[in-house]
Amino acid sequence: MYDILNRMHEPSDVSKLNLNELEQLSEEIRAFLIDSVSRTGGHLASNLGVVELTVALTHVFDFPEDKIVWDVGHQCYVYKLLTGRKDRFDTLRKFGGLSGFPKTAESEYDCFNTGHSSTSVSAALGLQKANRLAGKNEHVIAVLGDGALSGGMAVEALSDAGNCGGNFIVILNDNHMSISESVNGLTGHLKRLRTTAGYLTFKSGLEKALSRFPLGRSLVSGLKKIKDVTKHILIGKTVFDDMGFTYFGPVDGHDMDTLTRLLKRAKTATGPVLLHVLTQKGKGYKFAEDSPADYHGVSTFEAEKGISPKHGELTYSGMAGKTLCELGQENDRICVVTAAMAAGTGMDAFSQQFPHRFYDVGIAEQHAVTFSAGLAAGGMIPFVVIYSSFLQRAYDQILHDVCLQNLNVVFLIDRAGIVGEDGETHHGLFDMSYLATMPNMTVFAPADFDEFRQMLTYAAGGSHQGPLAIRYPRGLRQSESRSPEAFLPGKSAVYTKGTDVCLLCAGLSLRTGEKVAESLKEHNISASLVNLRTVHPIDEETVLSCAKSHKVLVTIEDGSLVGGVGERICALLTKKQISCPVFVKAFPPIVPHGSPKELKKLCRMDDEAITEEIITRYFS
Amino acid sequence: MYDILNRMHEPSDVSKLNLNELEQLSEEIRAFLIDSVSRTGGHLASNLGVVELTVALTHVFDFPEDKIVWDVGHQCYVYKLLTGRKDRFDTLRKFGGLSGFPKTAESEYDCFNTGHSSTSVSAALGLQKANRLAGKNEHVIAVLGDGALSGGMAVEALSDAGNCGGNFIVILNDNHMSISESVNGLTGHLKRLRTTAGYLTFKSGLEKALSRFPLGRSLVSGLKKIKDVTKHILIGKTVFDDMGFTYFGPVDGHDMDTLTRLLKRAKTATGPVLLHVLTQKGKGYKFAEDSPADYHGVSTFEAEKGISPKHGELTYSGMAGKTLCELGQENDRICVVTAAMAAGTGMDAFSQQFPHRFYDVGIAEQHAVTFSAGLAAGGMIPFVVIYSSFLQRAYDQILHDVCLQNLNVVFLIDRAGIVGEDGETHHGLFDMSYLATMPNMTVFAPADFDEFRQMLTYAAGGSHQGPLAIRYPRGLRQSESRSPEAFLPGKSAVYTKGTDVCLLCAGLSLRTGEKVAESLKEHNISASLVNLRTVHPIDEETVLSCAKSHKVLVTIEDGSLVGGVGERICALLTKKQISCPVFVKAFPPIVPHGSPKELKKLCRMDDEAITEEIITRYFS
Repeated sequence: MYDILNRMHEPSDVSKLNLNELEQLSEEIRAFLIDSVSRTGGHLASNLGVVELTVALTHVFDFPEDKIVWDVGHQCYVYKLLTGRKDRFDTLRKFGGLSGFPKTAESEYDCFNTGHSSTSVSAALGLQKANRLAGKNEHVIAVLGDGALSGGMAVEALSDAGNCGGNFIVILNDNHMSISESVNGLTGHLKRLRTTAGYLTFKSGLEKALSRFPLGRSLVSGLKKIKDVTKHILIGKTVFDDMGFTYFGPVDGHDMDTLTRLLKRAKTATGPVLLHVLTQKGKGYKFAEDSPADYHGVSTFEAEKGISPKHGELTYSGMAGKTLCELGQENDRICVVTAAMAAGTGMDAFSQQFPHRFYDVGIAEQHAVTFSAGLAAGGMIPFVVIYSSFLQRAYDQILHDVCLQNLNVVFLIDRAGIVGEDGETHHGLFDMSYLATMPNMTVFAPADFDEFRQMLTYAAGGSHQGPLAIRYPRGLRQSESRSPEAFLPGKSAVYTKGTDVCLLCAGLSLRTGEKVAESLKEHNISASLVNLRTVHPIDEETVLSCAKSHKVLVTIEDGSLVGGVGERICALLTKKQISCPVFVKAFPPIVPHGSPKELKKLCRMDDEAITEEIITRYFS
Repeated sequence: MYDILNRMHEPSDVSKLNLNELEQLSEEIRAFLIDSVSRTGGHLASNLGVVELTVALTHVFDFPEDKIVWDVGHQCYVYKLLTGRKDRFDTLRKFGGLSGFPKTAESEYDCFNTGHSSTSVSAALGLQKANRLAGKNEHVIAVLGDGALSGGMAVEALSDAGNCGGNFIVILNDNHMSISESVNGLTGHLKRLRTTAGYLTFKSGLEKALSRFPLGRSLVSGLKKIKDVTKHILIGKTVFDDMGFTYFGPVDGHDMDTLTRLLKRAKTATGPVLLHVLTQKGKGYKFAEDSPADYHGVSTFEAEKGISPKHGELTYSGMAGKTLCELGQENDRICVVTAAMAAGTGMDAFSQQFPHRFYDVGIAEQHAVTFSAGLAAGGMIPFVVIYSSFLQRAYDQILHDVCLQNLNVVFLIDRAGIVGEDGETHHGLFDMSYLATMPNMTVFAPADFDEFRQMLTYAAGGSHQGPLAIRYPRGLRQSESRSPEAFLPGKSAVYTKGTDVCLLCAGLSLRTGEKVAESLKEHNISASLVNLRTVHPIDEETVLSCAKSHKVLVTIEDGSLVGGVGERICALLTKKQISCPVFVKAFPPIVPHGSPKELKKLCRMDDEAITEEIITRYFS
């Protein structure tokens, strides 16, 4: 079934194949991917889109001497397959198994870890300069998606890279369009002719493709205006040329012949080259071609039937979206701003219901935050909805543009805490620490849906002065004990009163705390259970009172240790000269991929480990 | 002397002036600025460059109903002059006086605070959307420098703003070139003709101006290729047009007639407009025209003679540059990366001595850091030299690209602590807090030059695994007691041994600690003096030993309280169950402008206040 693929043990095996074999290999890889990802889950559509591109790259270049940096990195499956990791694909994204992203610790073929968007050109340029300084001439390649190009950092890097001198290759993997209809009319001869001349001009395909991203539009308007004679000149002079790159393209990213020829040309270039490749997300798997967004990240499914439509219980994201729709109806000052995460954050309905108050700015977290600061300065109540890990990109904007001015911006921080299979670059472990460093900032962490709704309602009410963040986890509602008292900003809620141990829990960790309290009870240890609710600033009154009335405080939080809730509570006790032991349970800053359950166990953040440690440390 | 200027009490007074009066007003303002800034110090060259532009804006628009956001903001002096703040100009940048940046708290004419680069379009776009949602049609203007355009965030914002619908005005204040020679040949008639046609084509000026920033180069190459007939079309279709803007320009930013006419046209436009204005830094003051960089930010000087060349004692920046030159000689793996701060950080000499290992990437902190991560992954030892406050822009890159991968990048954090006259947006108060949240990070803070040199030498040695930051203050060496023992990473140094109080000092705060120790001695209180040196992670052994052997620990740091050194020491004591009182002396997160001495006094961070508080709290 995988005749050629099974013979590909290392990249040099791919280098030996002829065109027909490369094409057959691509088909086999496609079949393998669909079969394998349907059984493990993972990023499917983006990987199906880069099969030929990756095969061609592996054929032309000499990895690992040559180096490749995959932007974001979830499109690296084919590369992993061809660099000796095929046999481990059943472990993909599983605990202890292959990562879904490039990982230098996993293979010598991965030269730089990625996960967040728009970093590849910067990193690759650094590698190229280091190569040159060391007197090496190996090739360095950055593969950048059209989405990643909307992140300002990528433009900063391209502007710099164009002047780098020496060979440097950027592949612009443009997968927003289906190229089928536009390429059909062109013969191989014409393609070859234009390639030889230096430029491929699929005019209509070019226009469509380019108009998808801001910088590219310059080409389109150029194309529309300029006739015949100047056409080549203009196409040759793209915004990338002007940055210093030699621009090749756009080319059909599923045409192996063209790809390999152009990559060979790029390889021999003496300066920086940008190869614009048009690929189709989900290519070769009809379900994914028809709705690539649904096949971006998938759980397990039956390959013959495709994924089943999702329904069932509401996620935290869904709850946020539903509540904002209701609140938006009542209050027309409420706006929603996101950065290419509308569906993931549950904001689709709001965007349809209130299109004039919904802003998806693309992968541009920095702009999203300062734009929201402007909305707030103009009297609106903006809700910026961004995943915890990606919000890190806007640290300075939150601090400088929102917090210093004490503006009423609400941050809805989705995917806070452990996210699971995406691993270390995607866990939302730092928000409680980094937001606490900022003046005027208040941070809530709901422990259940009811509380979450109350927090959202409070935030939308407009009575809160200054920045406000609500951080909530990925995934479904967990079995919940309903809050015993209404939410009050700044105040924590005492769920159970005990005498020995006081469990101070942040957000979802309340679920763990509940189980710990029960287990302790079985050991005749009486535990109080407190839901902190406001995780910054700390409810000092309650915490100090608990410290005075218990033998030990245990803090549990789904965030990183340093600067987190537990450490801030420790600092508070010293400052107030109250000497109660505090056992701080938090995650380490680097947590690998796996199911949340496995990761909690690994980090000894599950209720069994916590109970055991409390007993060992304080009651034995 | 200031006949017209003295009559300008509010912006509407400027609206009533005719062209001749506007021109005379500009001359008066120029004279006023030179006179006033020579007596107070401040940003001179950039303000001399925007005199006519600001006068024209004030003439055409209705502030404060119309709103303007000045990017970075140090070019807002003329605007302040014309919006009722002339009488306070002798207090400029002084404690309690006018800020050198826009401040909403200072005037209703300032609608959004700026300080860091590249934020204006985002903020202004937010204000514009808020206006529209509120049913208002006032104009919103962002003034963006060509330097700020190299920050990726500005490109993110422009890409979004071009689609905004409705009136929105971006002024691209392009001050990299002198326009004198290129404009001379053009008659007013020709200008008017082309303006009416929608495009001004100062071809040679355009080329020079545009080639200064990456995006603009697309225009230049277009210009070079396209002849006669298509010229207008091409110039009309710039990258800004392609983003959705109507592009006007480039225009002479010192020609009042053109400016007012084009601004009136921009005012009546129905969609977003970008007006490209060529201005000359330092315009009208010969010294500043000749060397605009020297007149960017100045201390007091004699207006007739110009500034005196700086010489004398070495600053911390100078010391960093000098030492890196020496270390770079010995070790060819050492590289220096900065983000448009080569002179300010003392790296000029390194750039000249080792041009192949020096990279100034422009105002692009994000790219600077990930590029350095790439250099490190390739085996180099990159030193990223950036001011503390601006490094915030790269929080995610430090965390995601450097720290998660534990790469050997050295961060030289200049301007850490209180910077003085630039005020709240420029103080480097957060680095010790935000860097501590990151895995694998080590942070040093030198207390004297000798120690600083030892730290730099250690960092360059390559024996340190993982990211390393050295944070040091703005300004000159202070009178120093030389370190009693050689620097060891991770270890603090005990300077004086006492019994009552232990003063744990971070970096420059050691100077304060010395004085406090002396004062306490006069009160018969015996103080130990400890220089922490490594401020993250804390030297637990020394700190715990001090806690056990003293009545009280006092931590002194030139950083913000939350998450800082003192709070981390407090947390440590609770975790270790050691109950020693800790008095944490740190700055609040928001500190206004003024001299460092005044600001320390304000924040009760001077030795007198600290001594007094120690005695009152613990010894009375």
